[in-house]
Amino acid sequence: MKREESEPLQLGGGGEPRRADKAIGMAGHVLAPERWLVGKVMEALGSPPVAVELWDGRPVEPVPEDPVARVRLRDRGVLYRLLRNPDLHFGDDYARGRIEVAGDLTELIATVDWARQRRHGYGGGRPGVTARLYRARRNTLSGSQENIHHHYDLGNDFYRLWLDEDMVYTCAYFPHPETDLEGAQRAKMDHVARKVRVAEGDRVVEAGCGWGSLARHLAREYGCRVRAFNISSEQIAYARERAKAEGLDDRVEFIQDDYRNVTGTYDAFVSVGMLEHVGTDHYRDLGEVIDRCLTDHGRALIHSIGRNRPVGPMNPWIERRIFPGAYPPALSEMTEIFEPFAFSIQDVENLRLHYERTLQHWLERFDHHAEEVRQRFGERFERAWRLYLAGSIAAFRTGSLQLFQLVLTRPTDNQLPWTREYMYPGTAA
Amino acid sequence: MKREESEPLQLGGGGEPRRADKAIGMAGHVLAPERWLVGKVMEALGSPPVAVELWDGRPVEPVPEDPVARVRLRDRGVLYRLLRNPDLHFGDDYARGRIEVAGDLTELIATVDWARQRRHGYGGGRPGVTARLYRARRNTLSGSQENIHHHYDLGNDFYRLWLDEDMVYTCAYFPHPETDLEGAQRAKMDHVARKVRVAEGDRVVEAGCGWGSLARHLAREYGCRVRAFNISSEQIAYARERAKAEGLDDRVEFIQDDYRNVTGTYDAFVSVGMLEHVGTDHYRDLGEVIDRCLTDHGRALIHSIGRNRPVGPMNPWIERRIFPGAYPPALSEMTEIFEPFAFSIQDVENLRLHYERTLQHWLERFDHHAEEVRQRFGERFERAWRLYLAGSIAAFRTGSLQLFQLVLTRPTDNQLPWTREYMYPGTAA
Repeated sequence: MKREESEPLQLGGGGEPRRADKAIGMAGHVLAPERWLVGKVMEALGSPPVAVELWDGRPVEPVPEDPVARVRLRDRGVLYRLLRNPDLHFGDDYARGRIEVAGDLTELIATVDWARQRRHGYGGGRPGVTARLYRARRNTLSGSQENIHHHYDLGNDFYRLWLDEDMVYTCAYFPHPETDLEGAQRAKMDHVARKVRVAEGDRVVEAGCGWGSLARHLAREYGCRVRAFNISSEQIAYARERAKAEGLDDRVEFIQDDYRNVTGTYDAFVSVGMLEHVGTDHYRDLGEVIDRCLTDHGRALIHSIGRNRPVGPMNPWIERRIFPGAYPPALSEMTEIFEPFAFSIQDVENLRLHYERTLQHWLERFDHHAEEVRQRFGERFERAWRLYLAGSIAAFRTGSLQLFQLVLTRPTDNQLPWTREYMYPGTAA
Repeated sequence: MKREESEPLQLGGGGEPRRADKAIGMAGHVLAPERWLVGKVMEALGSPPVAVELWDGRPVEPVPEDPVARVRLRDRGVLYRLLRNPDLHFGDDYARGRIEVAGDLTELIATVDWARQRRHGYGGGRPGVTARLYRARRNTLSGSQENIHHHYDLGNDFYRLWLDEDMVYTCAYFPHPETDLEGAQRAKMDHVARKVRVAEGDRVVEAGCGWGSLARHLAREYGCRVRAFNISSEQIAYARERAKAEGLDDRVEFIQDDYRNVTGTYDAFVSVGMLEHVGTDHYRDLGEVIDRCLTDHGRALIHSIGRNRPVGPMNPWIERRIFPGAYPPALSEMTEIFEPFAFSIQDVENLRLHYERTLQHWLERFDHHAEEVRQRFGERFERAWRLYLAGSIAAFRTGSLQLFQLVLTRPTDNQLPWTREYMYPGTAA
């Protein structure tokens, strides 16, 4: 994971340091305590191989020999904000351009996280305690509406710039590492379809359907009758339009409503990438919905970002600026969905590295359209979204985040496949 | 699941009822309140299609039209013991021959459980509450020794009568429903070996190794160096003897000690069928052992009977008479093994129906040797073990019990297989 020797570590204002060198006298002296302070912070972070420069352009000692990135704090305010709330203000000041990074942004974040893990152990802090104290923005019916609007109604045109052609905004499934994004998103939808064993004519309900790609896929490729719920108006409008264009509108119904209002009876329940927005307080509600709507031999699949243990709120910058109300649960927290209703867990799969790969594709495409994003949304937005994508890659790479797919059935259902080979269609059983 | 029409429902003393019929006057009158009481109990159980007769040989009304089995209580004491503690005394009085069953014992137990579920919901009672109040016989170092001795040191000759040739006393894995027991036990060992991705020369530690079949299999078929722990002296002696006979004693070391005393560093940790005896109080200890002994890229597998939710102690008759200290955990309880150490759950598989099938094979073989068991251990022992095997089949059939296999890795390990196809060697990826 070492930086390529050929990779330039140049800041935009790369000339400044030299000028600052000349005026070192008084300014350097004044900055000495702050330089010392940053040095101590880096030490507390486990001394990651990251070079830090203050606003005078001069480096904090000791300068690591082969830094993965060079970070410059552009004014004194940044430093004091970082000391107060590093996770929140790194994001905000990076987006505002008050923190500059030369080198690989993803690798910078991953490196700091690894160093912190080496020093403080995985996850850090006392697990569970902050998680219990913490309350994200409440995901009540109206709260969810507001939280989801914040993220998903940024405009379909924005997401179209860097998602795949089917607009799938969840972890893909790469049968091979080299599979392209379009292929991996289709493979994910097939993987999900196989896991819930859908057959022609099956009634399927989807909770949190995004732009409707999975619902359309299940109708088109498997002949299912799908009802798909989502509270994002922009996404629902897009989903309906595409279903109509594909002639699927007799088999797929898109409903702009909360998952708690799902009605009807279904052979399969699928929810891909919604649980992150449900909030642990409402996991039991979600279980109740599944319990209410699943047939005796029905299959339910939940696909969600998660964590190895409950370690409190996720990164506050992401929670406040990007994904209000989001929370990635540990398995112990997810059990609240199925244990009160005695659902039987048939299968859990962790696809962490598939999300790292998915995000790498997204960031690559995002970077390709960076100029367009800047022009339409402003530089601050563009920098914030790059940081969000890069930070997410880092989180899946370092194991701060997981991706779980769970399959549930009724407790008394004995119509189960004998092995899991059916999930792997290449299998010659 | 209905009884075959041709299947005789005859009790040993099949003639008695007629004689009792003649003397119905006073005796029938005296029994009327007790007959009414049993009728009420059957109603409370959800009116399963089971015929019950009292000690006068006359049936309790209403007699079901097509009963799966006929149960006779042979004296008044049985009835009052059953009213006091049905789960415990059904087992004890069945073993003592004071309860007689004509028909399929497994189907009888399953039918009563299904009826109870229909009436009272799955699992019954308030989940969690009794589980928290309950303490099985303590699995301290000395307590475990005593509990394990009770079950596993009955004598290898007893288990040899009805286990497979490799003496595997855990759930098998049937690639096809028709696979025979020997083949399914080998398939299970290969399934486990694949899940923990062992390679030639890998150091493997096994916690709770039974008669050593898996340890020998990993050494023989995969070239691993295995250290296997078990506190049952009979099993360890047998395991060592077979390893020596097979010329594997340079690669497999059997250690008569508690899992908490495992030392060393290993590429793989496996524990198949031990967790049931660990006790939830000690799950963190088990996690600590794994954390202490696993390499950075090590894989751990835990295979255990479990449940869909914590519903308190298991059947008290099994806990007291057959498996002291045993407790099948829900996933929420199992998280205590891995979350405190931030292990990453890679995979969970539920093999419930494989255990039903395994137990059917065992019961068939047990029945084949019933006369021998009776002669050597007495009729009470033979009846108790038949009930235990039949009841276990029923528990896996009705979903009262599950079988979970979990695979864990270190949180920061990125040397992970890209998909799970490697678990299915027939896969043409």
